Amino acid sequence: MSFSNTDIISTRTVTLFSADAPLRMECGAVLDNVTVAFETYGSLNAAGDNAVLVCHALTGSAHAAGRSSDDPRSAGWWDSFIGPGRPLDTERFFVISSNFLGGCYGTTGSSSIDPQTGRPFGLSFPQMTVRDMVRVQQALIHALGVKRLATVIGGSLGGMQVLEWGVMFPELVASLIPIATSAQHSPWAVGLNDLARQAIMNDPEWRNGEYYPFGQPTKGFSLARQIAMMSYRSGIEFAQRFGRERLKNNDDSRFDERNLFQVESYLSYQGVKLVERFDANTYLYITRAMDLHDVAQGRGSVDAVLGSIRVPVLSVGIDTDILYPASEQRAIASAIPNSLYIEISSPYGHDAFLIEFEQMAAIVRDFLK
Amino acid sequence: MSFSNTDIISTRTVTLFSADAPLRMECGAVLDNVTVAFETYGSLNAAGDNAVLVCHALTGSAHAAGRSSDDPRSAGWWDSFIGPGRPLDTERFFVISSNFLGGCYGTTGSSSIDPQTGRPFGLSFPQMTVRDMVRVQQALIHALGVKRLATVIGGSLGGMQVLEWGVMFPELVASLIPIATSAQHSPWAVGLNDLARQAIMNDPEWRNGEYYPFGQPTKGFSLARQIAMMSYRSGIEFAQRFGRERLKNNDDSRFDERNLFQVESYLSYQGVKLVERFDANTYLYITRAMDLHDVAQGRGSVDAVLGSIRVPVLSVGIDTDILYPASEQRAIASAIPNSLYIEISSPYGHDAFLIEFEQMAAIVRDFLK
Repeated sequence: MSFSNTDIISTRTVTLFSADAPLRMECGAVLDNVTVAFETYGSLNAAGDNAVLVCHALTGSAHAAGRSSDDPRSAGWWDSFIGPGRPLDTERFFVISSNFLGGCYGTTGSSSIDPQTGRPFGLSFPQMTVRDMVRVQQALIHALGVKRLATVIGGSLGGMQVLEWGVMFPELVASLIPIATSAQHSPWAVGLNDLARQAIMNDPEWRNGEYYPFGQPTKGFSLARQIAMMSYRSGIEFAQRFGRERLKNNDDSRFDERNLFQVESYLSYQGVKLVERFDANTYLYITRAMDLHDVAQGRGSVDAVLGSIRVPVLSVGIDTDILYPASEQRAIASAIPNSLYIEISSPYGHDAFLIEFEQMAAIVRDFLK
Repeated sequence: MSFSNTDIISTRTVTLFSADAPLRMECGAVLDNVTVAFETYGSLNAAGDNAVLVCHALTGSAHAAGRSSDDPRSAGWWDSFIGPGRPLDTERFFVISSNFLGGCYGTTGSSSIDPQTGRPFGLSFPQMTVRDMVRVQQALIHALGVKRLATVIGGSLGGMQVLEWGVMFPELVASLIPIATSAQHSPWAVGLNDLARQAIMNDPEWRNGEYYPFGQPTKGFSLARQIAMMSYRSGIEFAQRFGRERLKNNDDSRFDERNLFQVESYLSYQGVKLVERFDANTYLYITRAMDLHDVAQGRGSVDAVLGSIRVPVLSVGIDTDILYPASEQRAIASAIPNSLYIEISSPYGHDAFLIEFEQMAAIVRDFLK
């Protein structure tokens, strides 16, 4: 079937893992009847080897391209990148995007209803890891009839999944594109996630995770998002975009604390927006999964593990990224034998992989030729 | 009088500004009987022109050198830098250090008792600015008989005071040493301060600033400090120092959330330590003063204002500083005619000005020759 970026796309769901063959999670927990939300764009070829798996980041969803049936004005989060003639060309590739395990956009996670209690899992949900996410994605592509993925691509937490794909299922991938990510979550990134979790859990409205009947821990969750935002952009971009502008710039209002700096107003708005669309407990779980991410865990040295990846790898870094610095992307490329490292130059910091379309498009098109 | 770094030093206080000649603050408020806590090291010469003013940063105090009479084990915050034969040589200079206006280490501020009510000022304290701090310091050096400062030195918020000294009292300074600071507080730095304030004010224990009878808003204030800590060091240093180590590194404890990453434990400890020694409302006021800092405010362009400084200026940057990037220090030096820019190379980020003693000492010694 053909796909057009103006198409209305409904996120579909599939139930994977039976009681006979459940998902055995890294933490030791066992799950069956895992619901997975996913979308596909383009058609799978007869050989089943033209599929591309797109992995989303912390607050993403399966809705990567096209217009959502829930809100036809809303394009997918990587719509510019996926479609006919676009870098992930749906005339050539069968593109798959799914909400990862533990997410809150249709896949089973902390905010899903626990069939045993009829209430959300909340903190009783087992702590998933990036490896568990990849295990579920593997079951999904198998269910879709995919024999081999032409590539797996993703930035940030998406890139962590990409690297695990290369290690866990080398026979199922023909290439990998990890972007602005890490092989082992760094202590600076762990620290930042920890502060975001503290912000949520400090909020009395969080109620030890039992807030569902009452509403979200708004202030704390908003603050968590704002803490993260500081690492997604760069000081350079903030300076260009906000300068020292305030809501009102007259001298009389200079000492009025309600007369926010534009940067304060922007951060606050970003916080509120996430609270409206995302689940606080899920945020705790996903940031923990990121912190536990370490390709070397239980396998030997990070260089040996990355060195075992034999397929072609395109590692993309961003020169102003303070969360997953370019040095980490260079190290990933150095450790992988058949790899290419390309660095994006941008004032946008970590988020540049979603913003610098021209640079990203050229790099990915070349690699996929 | 001579000074030795083993001397027991008592922070002294002086009351400045009478009802007849009160402190007229930038916000329009008027204060009299301002208590200022200060220490001095070395002797003022007959001409009154061998004084050096040391300006402290956000959570600092007047206790910059020697042993405190409150706790003889506790050396001043810049003890290695001030003393006989040290970079700020007390055999040559009369070194003055004072707690700035609005601080909580003996100088009048938000946590001081309001004589009108007998209770702490709390949020009724007027919002001070960096210019107000400098105005009070000028009254202090006048009271001490100082005719001219050989130099004014400070890092971070201390450096903001240094720059204001150059603009407000050019006739009273012979040179300036601003370190790792900004001429105009950047939107990234404003954003970070705003998040720290949110962390404090989100805490119900903050009680709209009326927490004094009940104790500090511990969780929120600790989180505020931890947010700031992310910008004081660097990812490089965190990686070298903490790696991915946890309190317990055995695999069995990997999913135990109480088994903190060492970086989480470090941040938490830093948070608790500040709550024990600092006042939450004061933290709100000082971070606001930093955010309001702009040498250009009411004066014209930043380059013109800095360009009006005629004395020799040593501007020191740190290559890994993400809070006040080296680019800002270079810009300060570029705008000041008689200036020298030197960059410290360090993995320690912003805090390097307090840690990289050898580099800092050599730079400052050379400049003061």
